Amino acid sequence: MPREPKWDRVLSSAARLFAEDGFAATSVRAVAERARLTKAGLYYHIKEKEDLLFRICEQSIQDILDGARAGLKRHGEPAQRLAAILRNHAEFFFRHPHNLTVLNRDMGALTGAQREAVRALEMEYLELIREVFRHGQRLGQFRKIDPTVAAFGLLGVLNTLDRWYDAEGPVKAESLVEQLETLLMRGFVVAAETARPARPQRRPA
Amino acid sequence: MPREPKWDRVLSSAARLFAEDGFAATSVRAVAERARLTKAGLYYHIKEKEDLLFRICEQSIQDILDGARAGLKRHGEPAQRLAAILRNHAEFFFRHPHNLTVLNRDMGALTGAQREAVRALEMEYLELIREVFRHGQRLGQFRKIDPTVAAFGLLGVLNTLDRWYDAEGPVKAESLVEQLETLLMRGFVVAAETARPARPQRRPA
Repeated sequence: MPREPKWDRVLSSAARLFAEDGFAATSVRAVAERARLTKAGLYYHIKEKEDLLFRICEQSIQDILDGARAGLKRHGEPAQRLAAILRNHAEFFFRHPHNLTVLNRDMGALTGAQREAVRALEMEYLELIREVFRHGQRLGQFRKIDPTVAAFGLLGVLNTLDRWYDAEGPVKAESLVEQLETLLMRGFVVAAETARPARPQRRPA
Repeated sequence: MPREPKWDRVLSSAARLFAEDGFAATSVRAVAERARLTKAGLYYHIKEKEDLLFRICEQSIQDILDGARAGLKRHGEPAQRLAAILRNHAEFFFRHPHNLTVLNRDMGALTGAQREAVRALEMEYLELIREVFRHGQRLGQFRKIDPTVAAFGLLGVLNTLDRWYDAEGPVKAESLVEQLETLLMRGFVVAAETARPARPQRRPA
């Protein structure tokens, strides 16, 4: 499917409507109107409504994957690689908040080959993240958390941003990314070494 | 609403069906059959299908809240308080995995006073978690992450367990809780102090 401006407008209109009203409750006519096309004009691009959902999911995960791979090419150190993945995923959300909602909530409505194709992309992304963890663990730089638990921990934080984060609120996007990086890299708790500076506690001789 | 065995069975039947097929696609008749009641018998307990969704959401968040408060009563140290909240929420998920799916996906179908009541409970829980963070920050034991970012980071990890965690899989429940605790308390990255034991690097005198 060519990525021309009109088609991009169709997909972003559809993603916004699906996110607001749910995939099931959104009509093809409503998508066409929002994208300033006739219904017939929209059906030139798709066979059925599910095709819109499929293209939104496929293109979103592919975008996240492409960005993650580009980030990994730029960094060799495990912590930097992890930070690049986190930033890339968060920035996708900043650019396309509705797509994340659709991925989270409506992807289950896909069936057959479309469902399989999107699952395959998801698994590719999951495996890419797990490999970053395994690499960091092999070098002794990451804690020994099961890579699947670690990956879904990271994804849980990132994929729920659409439920609460408001770019107009008090925490700006750049600050959010930095805080999530701190949370995931270093954890909530100040390390004992830092919290209680090691004052020599020698008994009086 | 009294919490008698039959009513508990109705709610757990409804939660399972809503989780499997979605709230919109589940009929009151199907819930009645699963709970081994007649449809008329079920309508003795509720006025409409939304009442089932409301009671599932209300009772689930109330259970999580009660457990969190009990945990906080037992612990005074910030890290232990945070661990108690994490464990309580994860254990709710182990006991009622379907309820978490319904909370995550279908709660938006509630309207009016029911929606407000459930939102109020959610806000109570959110505020309880934020206060644990603020307390830890006041004592200098927690990193200075915005308490709202911190709380939703924690909730993002916990509330997405139903998307991937399989209690029959390789990671047992107790191990999952411990790994999530490590992840959230200490982060993925081994602290520099630990990774590179501080060998004195004095230049030869």
